[in-house]
Amino acid sequence: MTGPRYPDLIAALPETVPFVGPEVQERQKGARFRARLGANESVFGPSPFAIAAMQDEVAEVWKYADATNYDLKNALAARLRCTPENIVLGSGIDGLLGNTVRLLVEPGDAVVTSDGAYPTFNYHVAGYGGVLHKVPYRNDHEDIAALFAKAAEVDAKIVYLSNPDNPMGSWHSGAAIAAAMEDLPDGTLLVLDEAYVEFAPEGTSPDLPVDDPRLIRMRTFSKGYGMAGARLGYGFGAPRLIRAFDKIRNHFGINRPAQVGALAALQDQEWLDEVLRLVAQSKAEIARIAEANGLRALPSATNFVTVDCGADGDYARAVLAALVAQGVFVRMPFVAPQDRCIRITAGRPEDMAVLEETLPQALAEARDALKGAG
Amino acid sequence: MTGPRYPDLIAALPETVPFVGPEVQERQKGARFRARLGANESVFGPSPFAIAAMQDEVAEVWKYADATNYDLKNALAARLRCTPENIVLGSGIDGLLGNTVRLLVEPGDAVVTSDGAYPTFNYHVAGYGGVLHKVPYRNDHEDIAALFAKAAEVDAKIVYLSNPDNPMGSWHSGAAIAAAMEDLPDGTLLVLDEAYVEFAPEGTSPDLPVDDPRLIRMRTFSKGYGMAGARLGYGFGAPRLIRAFDKIRNHFGINRPAQVGALAALQDQEWLDEVLRLVAQSKAEIARIAEANGLRALPSATNFVTVDCGADGDYARAVLAALVAQGVFVRMPFVAPQDRCIRITAGRPEDMAVLEETLPQALAEARDALKGAG
Repeated sequence: MTGPRYPDLIAALPETVPFVGPEVQERQKGARFRARLGANESVFGPSPFAIAAMQDEVAEVWKYADATNYDLKNALAARLRCTPENIVLGSGIDGLLGNTVRLLVEPGDAVVTSDGAYPTFNYHVAGYGGVLHKVPYRNDHEDIAALFAKAAEVDAKIVYLSNPDNPMGSWHSGAAIAAAMEDLPDGTLLVLDEAYVEFAPEGTSPDLPVDDPRLIRMRTFSKGYGMAGARLGYGFGAPRLIRAFDKIRNHFGINRPAQVGALAALQDQEWLDEVLRLVAQSKAEIARIAEANGLRALPSATNFVTVDCGADGDYARAVLAALVAQGVFVRMPFVAPQDRCIRITAGRPEDMAVLEETLPQALAEARDALKGAG
Repeated sequence: MTGPRYPDLIAALPETVPFVGPEVQERQKGARFRARLGANESVFGPSPFAIAAMQDEVAEVWKYADATNYDLKNALAARLRCTPENIVLGSGIDGLLGNTVRLLVEPGDAVVTSDGAYPTFNYHVAGYGGVLHKVPYRNDHEDIAALFAKAAEVDAKIVYLSNPDNPMGSWHSGAAIAAAMEDLPDGTLLVLDEAYVEFAPEGTSPDLPVDDPRLIRMRTFSKGYGMAGARLGYGFGAPRLIRAFDKIRNHFGINRPAQVGALAALQDQEWLDEVLRLVAQSKAEIARIAEANGLRALPSATNFVTVDCGADGDYARAVLAALVAQGVFVRMPFVAPQDRCIRITAGRPEDMAVLEETLPQALAEARDALKGAG
């Protein structure tokens, strides 16, 4: 009596999760976090209209959602000045990244990303047997020229660029990306992850035709729109590529209230503006607290601030551990030299108060811990 | 300026959706359906406690859901008398079927199913390059002996069996499945789709150890629990297989209110009992209406009744088209000789009234249409 037979690719994959969620940490600690500032969620929540729309639609949850996402696609198309045929909905950008990799990457195919960029993208590439080529950050920015040069060198199927960048909060102008496109090799798809674009300055998204076959842009209702738990992201690009998702996606995979809520969220520009205002306020507050403790806040075009702890990765990891122990959920970059930083999501005044209270103690503990180890 | 390069497998796939949803048909017709009886949704909806729980949790939708599904897995484990390590959650059975195929099937690998069984399973197999071998139904039942013999003959990685069966509503006893297991070839995984098991007689699920490495069972909150639009299904089986899903699944892919709602739904056995009572009532009513119109209702262990229209597939398709034109959303089997039937989901008394009103006219139209064509 034997079990199933796994292909070599699957057998060799680790049973990992790219991120450990805060609930898991809370169960391990036996205590709730006092401030949830680690996953770049929007503690300000979605538009009250989106909340009301979702609550109403719960009564209709016995129905499968419209698999063609007709209403939401049309609303997005009007907003993006394109057609519904340019848009694909998915289970967050995570789900769409998985679909994109599946559409293009066969075992052994080359894929390019920045070393220390989004781990879930890397997870999908590994899951389909792609070979990742990683390019270092340059001055805490993703290095567009180096990414595209590497793509040409290794004949990449995909090059991944997040703009603004997670985890560093840095960004390039849309003009810089548009100018770089002539160096994108033929046959390489640029996956431009714009999860944080609502927080970024005007002009951060490149002014390129939506039908340009060389790129797909991805956005989400998880960040600015405050609906991370709804699981709704979208990609937009040339119709031929968008149609290809219909070959493989889980057509009836989207939650019905989420779809209705996203439509309402999209129509409440006032709420988004308010969130942007609150996020800007909180980012200033994070910077103030960081600087009061002798740390440096990096410029950010996102809803988080990456804070340079001023030493190496071991020190930042000790700071992070001490914050987590004191009930502050935060995360940090994985790769040197970016791992000298911790990453703090914008929060409410009460979240900032917890940060202000706990950070001096966390820094002291980290210094002591490293002295003890040294 | 060229687009991305698709692997041959992807390039050859059709841009299809396994099912056309009722919303698409409504837009095409320019009118809403009067009765929604085509997708085996539960018009009776979820437990009021589940509705309340989801509405409350909408306020928390800014948070990603717990990617380990801790609370829900523990509740399911208690119910199924197994451990959380035996359980995987997914975006409906559809999502889990996709994951299962991905875990096991490489291009060219053999997979066995019944001819006319669940199209979405076939969609996933095609999507990963598997080769489908189809076994005919036998007396409107899936033919377990023939399925397992075919699996041995073609050295299948997976054999798919739904019990109770969709679209025929027929079922086998759990004892019959357990007895057949000794003929399941080594190295073949039995995917036992129990989406409708809540509606089936005691003993329909085989009494086999949950750690048996030869099978995975799949169940859902979409049918008996009335939460199709929430997108939540689960698989249970041996821990090694369950862990393998962690290698590839979209860990943060589940909607947060859906997860909380499912937990509440699971704890309201009274509501499920009430739904079973209402479904049984409606099934009797469908049978009565069918027989009053000279049709035969097949026995069903699900929340739908498959009705034999008494002639060939062309006739049943004409009946279905006439019902749809009159505002009754129903579906039918795709493959002969099962396509002599239409499939009608249990509904409320008002849905049954619409069926009773429209069926005679639909049958008359179908007879006329075929006379005209003949």
